[in-house]
Amino acid sequence: MSLKFAKRMDNMKASDIREMLKLTQKPEVISFAGGLPAPELFPVEEMKLVLAKVMDEYGTVALQYGPTEGFEPLREKILDRMAKLKVDDLTIDNILITSGSQQGLDFMAKAFINPGDVILCESPTYLGAINAFRAYEPRFIEVETDDDGMILEDLEEKLRENDNVKFIYVIPDFQNPSGRTMSIERRKGLVDIANKYNVAVVEDNPYGELRFEGEIYPAIKHYDTEGRVIFLGTFSKIFSPGLRVGWIAADEEVLRKFILIKQGADLQSPTINQIAVAKFLDHYDIEAYIDRIKKVYKRRKDLMLNTIREEFPEGIKVTDPDGGLFTWLVLPPHINARELSIKALEKNVAYVPGGSFFPNGGNENTLRVNYSNMEEERIVEGVRRLAQVFKEALEKIEA
Amino acid sequence: MSLKFAKRMDNMKASDIREMLKLTQKPEVISFAGGLPAPELFPVEEMKLVLAKVMDEYGTVALQYGPTEGFEPLREKILDRMAKLKVDDLTIDNILITSGSQQGLDFMAKAFINPGDVILCESPTYLGAINAFRAYEPRFIEVETDDDGMILEDLEEKLRENDNVKFIYVIPDFQNPSGRTMSIERRKGLVDIANKYNVAVVEDNPYGELRFEGEIYPAIKHYDTEGRVIFLGTFSKIFSPGLRVGWIAADEEVLRKFILIKQGADLQSPTINQIAVAKFLDHYDIEAYIDRIKKVYKRRKDLMLNTIREEFPEGIKVTDPDGGLFTWLVLPPHINARELSIKALEKNVAYVPGGSFFPNGGNENTLRVNYSNMEEERIVEGVRRLAQVFKEALEKIEA
Repeated sequence: MSLKFAKRMDNMKASDIREMLKLTQKPEVISFAGGLPAPELFPVEEMKLVLAKVMDEYGTVALQYGPTEGFEPLREKILDRMAKLKVDDLTIDNILITSGSQQGLDFMAKAFINPGDVILCESPTYLGAINAFRAYEPRFIEVETDDDGMILEDLEEKLRENDNVKFIYVIPDFQNPSGRTMSIERRKGLVDIANKYNVAVVEDNPYGELRFEGEIYPAIKHYDTEGRVIFLGTFSKIFSPGLRVGWIAADEEVLRKFILIKQGADLQSPTINQIAVAKFLDHYDIEAYIDRIKKVYKRRKDLMLNTIREEFPEGIKVTDPDGGLFTWLVLPPHINARELSIKALEKNVAYVPGGSFFPNGGNENTLRVNYSNMEEERIVEGVRRLAQVFKEALEKIEA
Repeated sequence: MSLKFAKRMDNMKASDIREMLKLTQKPEVISFAGGLPAPELFPVEEMKLVLAKVMDEYGTVALQYGPTEGFEPLREKILDRMAKLKVDDLTIDNILITSGSQQGLDFMAKAFINPGDVILCESPTYLGAINAFRAYEPRFIEVETDDDGMILEDLEEKLRENDNVKFIYVIPDFQNPSGRTMSIERRKGLVDIANKYNVAVVEDNPYGELRFEGEIYPAIKHYDTEGRVIFLGTFSKIFSPGLRVGWIAADEEVLRKFILIKQGADLQSPTINQIAVAKFLDHYDIEAYIDRIKKVYKRRKDLMLNTIREEFPEGIKVTDPDGGLFTWLVLPPHINARELSIKALEKNVAYVPGGSFFPNGGNENTLRVNYSNMEEERIVEGVRRLAQVFKEALEKIEA
């Protein structure tokens, strides 16, 4: 037997992260590979109480089908999250509940991409987005980036040169994988350019509230005057990824398309999960919880960066992120981080080779390192082992 | 602003059921429209205990990311459900957890359908499947059916005539919407034909265990010798739809494609929901729970059928289903059930016009009626009101 699959399946391959996550389940592995929140911070006791309340007050509703758009009180509460990022002109008619923001990525390509259409993205960009988009057979064009995010001159040039660009995909805050943040000026400039060329913008913003110090940056959607920015949000990084509750915030007309897609894709996100998140937000102080996360992640980030600076050989560049979960390393051009990830795994340390984050390949001298999920002594030990791996590689090259 | 959406969006329209569900939220409406389980049967107290246990025993695991394939102990338990339908040669490597079986439908078309490829389906067939598949721009060819399901001669003729058929879509038990069951002989025959023409079969089997009397029929997958039957299962109708826990059971090689699709679509189904279902199955007797559901649904079905026979004017055909949630009415050819649904709603009774279940249109003299979700006196009252609507329509025509 050999069944004939659709052409799109030729493009799809396993996520390096998801596959690596399996290897890193072993307790002896120090994993900087995943993008997992620190589980010891999860509000387990609080959730136990919340779930009991949900069953007491909403038992039959929680276990029954609900509307595709989502549980209204939760959509209401999401307006508060949007307001934190200075998006305050929305109503619940702009909010669709999704199964994590990953589902928003899939829907985005489903709504916009015909085979061969162009997606403009940061170089590098989120691997999970590349995989979600690939199913719809787009052409990826990478836009150059620097420490302030997408370089707008390059963005505009690529829009001028390509007339079938459907959307620009951006992760503005503490980008996955680079850890870099788009400047406020460029956020505004990006919207101006999108207006000029009449393309949509996908703002993937899972970490915006996880800024370690100073004021949270306004979302790109804050600058959206024409309803062309589609914002993807999630509770995964500020609360719990295992609940799979995210959202799309968009112009009503655009959102109607996503509601149609959601109906076909899975009818609705789980009713019980949506009510549980809404009730958690009712009964507990999510701001205090986010503060706790930020404090721990900042400590881990500082420790990782300090250890990297102390232990790593010269010639390796590292991002010092202002928030979020990741930092990014650039090795000398002749060093292959994908090959070295095998050597690192032999020393029981895992990371994701950076090449996976470039949809058109190359850049194999880079790697993404997560600091949110490991306890402090393991961060130090893991970085030391990595330093050893990189030293050996550099020495071998020089020899 | 006018953003350019993908071509596939031209095909997609709102589900008549989902849209109608909104109208039928009003308490005064007697709704035969949805496919909702009886909420008064949900094991609310049991789930409260189960969720407390899940948080005590698996707290941080339940709130964290988990594997794309799903929670292993749940995949293990799904093998028992498959065995109930006489599919007993699977391992957990054949099981992928999905967000309801609706997600399985979306994945099926995503994996197999290039624009213009043919899907063979029963005439009529499930509206939610039509909507899910439409996003991938297939051509639907309807296969004739009788009281024993798909007519195999017609199926084979259509396979002979069309060389780009990718799969045959079938709901073998208490079909949605017709309430009819495919005979055991035809299940076997269907697999033989699929083997001969080398096409896949999608067996959508949400109700198989809800047979009111006698032995459960073997799934079509029971007869699958070549791994070409892809089985879609769900806990929605035997436990709770609000949890959104379903599964795909398929040949390992085929399942790997679905795992890739799942990674892109939403990474994984919610961890906490999967653990909760597994723990419920550990601590409670699901067979006893299913027996309770069957007893109530059978009583409601009998009551509905008896009232229909007593109250309806002559010339209306009705299915007497052996299980499941739905019955199906065929009015005289000149009566339009879609138009009459407005009149019925004026009398506060709702159903789904049957025309919606024919992907290529027509058959507007049919309707789907659900009996699982309404209490008994409302069933009688609702059928009486419908009888009135149909009588008036028939009299008008005759006049």
